[in-house]
Amino acid sequence: MYITAQPIPHAVTGIADAAAAIRDMRIRGAGRIARAGAEAIGSFARGYGGSSLEEFLRDLDGAKAEILASRPTAVSLWNGVCASAAGAYGAATLGEALEAVASGADRFIESSSRAVEAISEIGARSVSDGDTVLTHCNSSAAVGVLIEAHRRGRSFKAYATETRPWRQGLVTARELAAAGVDVTLIADSAARHVMKRVDRVFVGADTVMSDGSVVNKIGTSQIAAAARDFGADFAVCAETYKFSPKTVSGEPVPIEERDGGELAKAGEVPPSVKIYNPVFDVTPPGDVSRLITEEGVMHPSAAYSVLLRRFGAGAAGLGGIT
Amino acid sequence: MYITAQPIPHAVTGIADAAAAIRDMRIRGAGRIARAGAEAIGSFARGYGGSSLEEFLRDLDGAKAEILASRPTAVSLWNGVCASAAGAYGAATLGEALEAVASGADRFIESSSRAVEAISEIGARSVSDGDTVLTHCNSSAAVGVLIEAHRRGRSFKAYATETRPWRQGLVTARELAAAGVDVTLIADSAARHVMKRVDRVFVGADTVMSDGSVVNKIGTSQIAAAARDFGADFAVCAETYKFSPKTVSGEPVPIEERDGGELAKAGEVPPSVKIYNPVFDVTPPGDVSRLITEEGVMHPSAAYSVLLRRFGAGAAGLGGIT
Amino acid sequence: MYITAQPIPHAVTGIADAAAAIRDMRIRGAGRIARAGAEAIGSFARGYGGSSLEEFLRDLDGAKAEILASRPTAVSLWNGVCASAAGAYGAATLGEALEAVASGADRFIESSSRAVEAISEIGARSVSDGDTVLTHCNSSAAVGVLIEAHRRGRSFKAYATETRPWRQGLVTARELAAAGVDVTLIADSAARHVMKRVDRVFVGADTVMSDGSVVNKIGTSQIAAAARDFGADFAVCAETYKFSPKTVSGEPVPIEERDGGELAKAGEVPPSVKIYNPVFDVTPPGDVSRLITEEGVMHPSAAYSVLLRRFGAGAAGLGGIT
Amino acid sequence: MYITAQPIPHAVTGIADAAAAIRDMRIRGAGRIARAGAEAIGSFARGYGGSSLEEFLRDLDGAKAEILASRPTAVSLWNGVCASAAGAYGAATLGEALEAVASGADRFIESSSRAVEAISEIGARSVSDGDTVLTHCNSSAAVGVLIEAHRRGRSFKAYATETRPWRQGLVTARELAAAGVDVTLIADSAARHVMKRVDRVFVGADTVMSDGSVVNKIGTSQIAAAARDFGADFAVCAETYKFSPKTVSGEPVPIEERDGGELAKAGEVPPSVKIYNPVFDVTPPGDVSRLITEEGVMHPSAAYSVLLRRFGAGAAGLGGIT
Amino acid sequence: MYITAQPIPHAVTGIADAAAAIRDMRIRGAGRIARAGAEAIGSFARGYGGSSLEEFLRDLDGAKAEILASRPTAVSLWNGVCASAAGAYGAATLGEALEAVASGADRFIESSSRAVEAISEIGARSVSDGDTVLTHCNSSAAVGVLIEAHRRGRSFKAYATETRPWRQGLVTARELAAAGVDVTLIADSAARHVMKRVDRVFVGADTVMSDGSVVNKIGTSQIAAAARDFGADFAVCAETYKFSPKTVSGEPVPIEERDGGELAKAGEVPPSVKIYNPVFDVTPPGDVSRLITEEGVMHPSAAYSVLLRRFGAGAAGLGGIT
Amino acid sequence: MYITAQPIPHAVTGIADAAAAIRDMRIRGAGRIARAGAEAIGSFARGYGGSSLEEFLRDLDGAKAEILASRPTAVSLWNGVCASAAGAYGAATLGEALEAVASGADRFIESSSRAVEAISEIGARSVSDGDTVLTHCNSSAAVGVLIEAHRRGRSFKAYATETRPWRQGLVTARELAAAGVDVTLIADSAARHVMKRVDRVFVGADTVMSDGSVVNKIGTSQIAAAARDFGADFAVCAETYKFSPKTVSGEPVPIEERDGGELAKAGEVPPSVKIYNPVFDVTPPGDVSRLITEEGVMHPSAAYSVLLRRFGAGAAGLGGIT
Repeated sequence: MYITAQPIPHAVTGIADAAAAIRDMRIRGAGRIARAGAEAIGSFARGYGGSSLEEFLRDLDGAKAEILASRPTAVSLWNGVCASAAGAYGAATLGEALEAVASGADRFIESSSRAVEAISEIGARSVSDGDTVLTHCNSSAAVGVLIEAHRRGRSFKAYATETRPWRQGLVTARELAAAGVDVTLIADSAARHVMKRVDRVFVGADTVMSDGSVVNKIGTSQIAAAARDFGADFAVCAETYKFSPKTVSGEPVPIEERDGGELAKAGEVPPSVKIYNPVFDVTPPGDVSRLITEEGVMHPSAAYSVLLRRFGAGAAGLGGIT
Repeated sequence: MYITAQPIPHAVTGIADAAAAIRDMRIRGAGRIARAGAEAIGSFARGYGGSSLEEFLRDLDGAKAEILASRPTAVSLWNGVCASAAGAYGAATLGEALEAVASGADRFIESSSRAVEAISEIGARSVSDGDTVLTHCNSSAAVGVLIEAHRRGRSFKAYATETRPWRQGLVTARELAAAGVDVTLIADSAARHVMKRVDRVFVGADTVMSDGSVVNKIGTSQIAAAARDFGADFAVCAETYKFSPKTVSGEPVPIEERDGGELAKAGEVPPSVKIYNPVFDVTPPGDVSRLITEEGVMHPSAAYSVLLRRFGAGAAGLGGIT
Repeated sequence: MYITAQPIPHAVTGIADAAAAIRDMRIRGAGRIARAGAEAIGSFARGYGGSSLEEFLRDLDGAKAEILASRPTAVSLWNGVCASAAGAYGAATLGEALEAVASGADRFIESSSRAVEAISEIGARSVSDGDTVLTHCNSSAAVGVLIEAHRRGRSFKAYATETRPWRQGLVTARELAAAGVDVTLIADSAARHVMKRVDRVFVGADTVMSDGSVVNKIGTSQIAAAARDFGADFAVCAETYKFSPKTVSGEPVPIEERDGGELAKAGEVPPSVKIYNPVFDVTPPGDVSRLITEEGVMHPSAAYSVLLRRFGAGAAGLGGIT
Repeated sequence: MYITAQPIPHAVTGIADAAAAIRDMRIRGAGRIARAGAEAIGSFARGYGGSSLEEFLRDLDGAKAEILASRPTAVSLWNGVCASAAGAYGAATLGEALEAVASGADRFIESSSRAVEAISEIGARSVSDGDTVLTHCNSSAAVGVLIEAHRRGRSFKAYATETRPWRQGLVTARELAAAGVDVTLIADSAARHVMKRVDRVFVGADTVMSDGSVVNKIGTSQIAAAARDFGADFAVCAETYKFSPKTVSGEPVPIEERDGGELAKAGEVPPSVKIYNPVFDVTPPGDVSRLITEEGVMHPSAAYSVLLRRFGAGAAGLGGIT
Repeated sequence: MYITAQPIPHAVTGIADAAAAIRDMRIRGAGRIARAGAEAIGSFARGYGGSSLEEFLRDLDGAKAEILASRPTAVSLWNGVCASAAGAYGAATLGEALEAVASGADRFIESSSRAVEAISEIGARSVSDGDTVLTHCNSSAAVGVLIEAHRRGRSFKAYATETRPWRQGLVTARELAAAGVDVTLIADSAARHVMKRVDRVFVGADTVMSDGSVVNKIGTSQIAAAARDFGADFAVCAETYKFSPKTVSGEPVPIEERDGGELAKAGEVPPSVKIYNPVFDVTPPGDVSRLITEEGVMHPSAAYSVLLRRFGAGAAGLGGIT
Repeated sequence: MYITAQPIPHAVTGIADAAAAIRDMRIRGAGRIARAGAEAIGSFARGYGGSSLEEFLRDLDGAKAEILASRPTAVSLWNGVCASAAGAYGAATLGEALEAVASGADRFIESSSRAVEAISEIGARSVSDGDTVLTHCNSSAAVGVLIEAHRRGRSFKAYATETRPWRQGLVTARELAAAGVDVTLIADSAARHVMKRVDRVFVGADTVMSDGSVVNKIGTSQIAAAARDFGADFAVCAETYKFSPKTVSGEPVPIEERDGGELAKAGEVPPSVKIYNPVFDVTPPGDVSRLITEEGVMHPSAAYSVLLRRFGAGAAGLGGIT
């Protein structure tokens, strides 16, 4: 891994600034982090002052490492940085390499910026008049699908789960209501109870693993199981920068555990009661009907193909970066 | 149905008092309501001043109707009243009938009083050292099983779900912790996430239907589905007065819907957001490993046999062959 | 087995007449056949001229055998005859035995006559406003449920399958339409396609086996599987005289195979094409939500209990008749 | 529980002898043990010299306890002893009680002696020409079914699994071959591989639990799962004295663990390798198509009804309502 | 989209002719339509008279649009036209582009012409002696597999479903019989009943969606469910021009609904009976064992990869990253 | 196919030697065979004395055929030989072709040599402290994963199945014990019994089919089914040279049947007992959580994509579109 004491000879200012902004949480959100990383790598190439391809590739690796170290668990950052840089490794000349990285960064920024919008449009096409849909937590892509479907004049009814402990479902309910969608709030426990009348479920994703497993807000897996048991369609709305290349090399996705106080405040239960408050769970690909990405609709098990098309086996750390 | 204007000639004071106490919620809880009904019917027989069997049976029907009208949807009340009265109908003399009702009421009271205790003892036998168990909501029978297992020295770990919107899981957690059980509180959405490591689930029941379906706190059905998908044992702890004879004749069990304000307070979501707040859901018998009752362990589909053994097809409101 | 050459000394005229009428198909339909058998056995007892209990029991066996031989595969005949006669075997005196058989026959006739009506009432209670239901073939009990639900003012929509090769679904559609039910005809192949929007399925039964398996019109099992896969309720409407005591002793229910010409007329396919035209299939108890009988609602696996309560293990042929 | 120091005043010699013979393994096999217990109890009643009913009931309890202590885990012994004695508790006089126990013992012996034969006959009826069947381990009831089916001229093919570690499948293969059945031996691991072509599976049972779970030779549950996944019929051949009344009161069925040397001989693996050698596993009722018992064919979930019909809730160790 | 009033300057005669022939149904059948489109595009390139690459690409888009407008819902036309044209977009010179389109069209025509034959050969390899197979409706690819397997000397038995309402199964039965295959006709409702003895199912596809869902003749999904429940292999025989690129961008596949008169003739049911007559249903990828295409055997979830390899994300109507 | 009488003009010594060594079993093991084939093809290119590209390609085909004929059913040999040679077919000059083959062989050798090690590293990342794992038979890749996880300090417990008839599980147990892993040997029949407490299963593969089906040691499929039913992770450790290109064109994978004497020695069963001793079974992709390959972690249904990326549709024996 990159050691910061080691000087990066050219144009590192931008890299260091971006890394700091990400590290200090001034830049937040999977998409924004990814684009900040891509932009830093693109600027690095545009401002590069060195003169040999070999040197550039070494410096590029340094720059990548510095940026990635700012938030090592952010799948999207990895995607933005590595997808931007990927073109350099096959270049024949320094000029070609610089151009490849600059345009790679531009392409990533352009595409990722439009990803939520693209997913909204793609997903909205599958909502029909008379449908009942359900969503969990507050995914901008999933909410986007519903608002876009409403905008296109589709008449449907939506359920939003409360999503304890943070109750992001209330945000979802507010956003849908503001857009004019007919929305009903339910407890997380009521998802299976209403599922017989639900036609399609749209949820987001935190991470899509290379085997098609979907890591998302705690509770997602039991909604998926209910959808499977009641024949409802279960669609995961995921920008492809949520696809984790690290999982190609077997890295597990850590399930963040948060403070128990979010679930029960001090004094609500005696101290001898433990609280386990995991943020995510894993839905297996067999319980997912399809992924809706800005690159189109696919079965979750196609995630490996998408990752290898983008990064190659080497870039996936099998060479390997990890 | 009983018409209150019609005078009940003998000993109705007790009936009317019991009915009022149940109606006004001074007597609460499935078991206590059932025993109040049984006691009223027993006292009615003991204090009966009439002189013909025929007249008694007519008066008994009136008394039953008055009591049942105090809480028409309470399955346990129906059980206590009708199980107490059942012996009268086959009696040859008034004396025999009075004796049958008095002793029927005593037997019901005795047996139902001990039901939770009996279930605790029966259920505790299935908990082994090293087990991880999970419970939902706050069922005295299910909690009783765990505390009894702990009292017998079994070393196990328990999960209690929060159980939104009323959060009765906090009560469960407190009760288990007070008894010394190692208990961990989780969000309702986390039940499936921990299920791989759970060996057995114990929940209560609001109503057991004659086809073996279990009506219980919203969220029960998705915990049962998770238990089924992960090979965990799913036991429903149900006093047999929770078995509904009305369902024998096809009566659906109404799923009570409560005020949306329990889920989101005024102002938390805009008025255009609807809130659906059902109290119960239905778990099909195929997702239940077994019922633990004070009459022993059985598959839920044996509920019909238990009901007919107790009430006969006729008592179930069916003019049957039997 | 009874040998017809052997003279039956008393009152056999009625038995022989009934047997002939059943054999010659002058009496048809599961219910009517059953009641004809019960009536013949009842009359036999009423007109019995012998003087010893022992002799009566022997003659009764002869009478039963003669009637049963008139349609050996009719489950309902077996039910009507044996349920009527059952009381004789525990009688202490001839008079008691004669009385038991006469009243047993009356009870069976009364109860079986009302069975379809009772099932209609019981089943109708489970239909709610807004439901979508589906039925297959043309079962008077299942159609009765829907018409009764409509008569009670429930607003629902019904699908009727065509039911090749005889297309009894057209009869169902006509009956439902005549009663004012909103009914839509679909091809048998479309049942799964519409199942996501179906809340409950009602079908009849030809035979209910002692292990809870349901033998019914070909196609029933795949509708049940679709109901299971889409979380729809699958109710079988079956008079208890459809419960087969012979299956208690392991007798398989033969699946009648009918002429291929019913499926494709001569010339539609070359002679080398075989045609397999089974009338029934078997739905396993795990795919059936519940049985609706005139004795109430039960899980199909409760069939054994019903059979033993009615006939005893001995009467079920384990003594045994077979 | 009975304390042996306490003198049993009358006729205990027979009891003590039977208990010793069972304890010392001179009497072996579930059926033989059960009948030895029944015979001892019957003889005890026949030779009883006391003069009061009350005293007899106390002595009977002592005799039962002594016998049961000879093999406390033998379900069949419990069945034989308790089913024989059951009639005493409702008797009005000592004479009636002695008679009830004597005849109860006779009935049990008669019925249990014929149980395997009855099961063979019942089960054989379900085997059709052209069938392929599979059996596991060496159950006399399951083997009996196949030999009886062959004797009736049914043409079928059988698979027998090796059944490690004791390889009882070789005994089965020899028995079937000796009877002329076309039998093929396979490894335990090959059961699922051949299941697509298997029509029906017949296995025995060690214990049937009150909730319908079947405890049988290790490996049974995965054969049942394969049968379920490939639509093969899975029948458990079980004499009703295998039904465990203790499980009604929640007693778990202990899974016997035997010496690791049965699986790998000393030296085959280094001492640090542990060996786990459980004798039985548990097949849930949902994976069992039916039980074939001498009291007929039933769904496994009907076990509770059979147990209560035989013993009553009280006899099952529960102070129940009944 | 192309506006016909706008003049296409070069060689459009062929395009207009092909479009007209497709629109007027003179050219029919998924394969023939696809090849007509490819040929028109190829001729367009061969006869192109313009002189700049940029102009050609614009004209090519016009030509594509005109052809596609002739049958906008034909997935295969989209495949033939776009696969032929795809090479132009990466060309460096006009000559290269013309050559790429001409040879692309030739390759598509060659490959698609051989597709059914290739599928027949690939599929036939999986049929073994002694197998029982089943097919639904009348798919030339599925029938081709069976005839080819027979031609190779495989001895197997086939079931063909009637396939109401058009009864194309009779055509299938005739074709198989003519080729010498041992074929048995069954009702659609009998598919599940025979499935235990079926080893493999071969059906065709109307459309394969990018997530692996298979749209095919109504009834396919319930045959697939039966195959899954009985462990039979379920293979879908689909030329890759049936893979729909539009579904990549979320376009649903419309389920054509045809006239009710196909199911019941006028007068067979009263006018108040509605008739719903959908042509297709959707089988989820989890119920499909494999796709057999002219590009080989794959899991249906590989459809996305095939589509992107052929068209790229851009061609799929997505402004993607690629 | 190559005819050995036909002289191969250049450098065939190496080819013939390698072929002989493989044929005579001097070279054994999927990986070693593959590398021997690759090395022979590489040497053939390095030592090639011809002067035209066309001639070389013809000679290369001869060399490939000769090598492949030495073990026609070895999937890995096919992979090694064809992957090495693949680069030649797109070469513009003889020099380029020779270079492509030489380096292709080197790359294959390098990558396949490291495959087991890479899989061990990738798989080890998914083992967590406290896990219980299970393995079947003796796969060097699966064993490698466990040993590597132990080496990294993960604390877990392993089950190894005996794996009749060859009992390779004893080898596995010895290897794991030698490495210090806490390992317990169980009978094959006990796998389902312990599965509730198993977190993850690691097995090897003999062949991965293009539709994602996994051919592996008999018994694998029932362990996979148990893992699915109990929610355990089921990972298949497979070097990509186990992916069979032949299955792309529909070739079934023959299930080797070995001598019955391996299961029961002569005399253990009478000669009329047949013995069926298949070596492998097939696990469907829906029962496999993921493949762990040296190219990363993927869902088994991604196998087609991997095969086409490596060989192209043409190399898979299909005259496809590519």
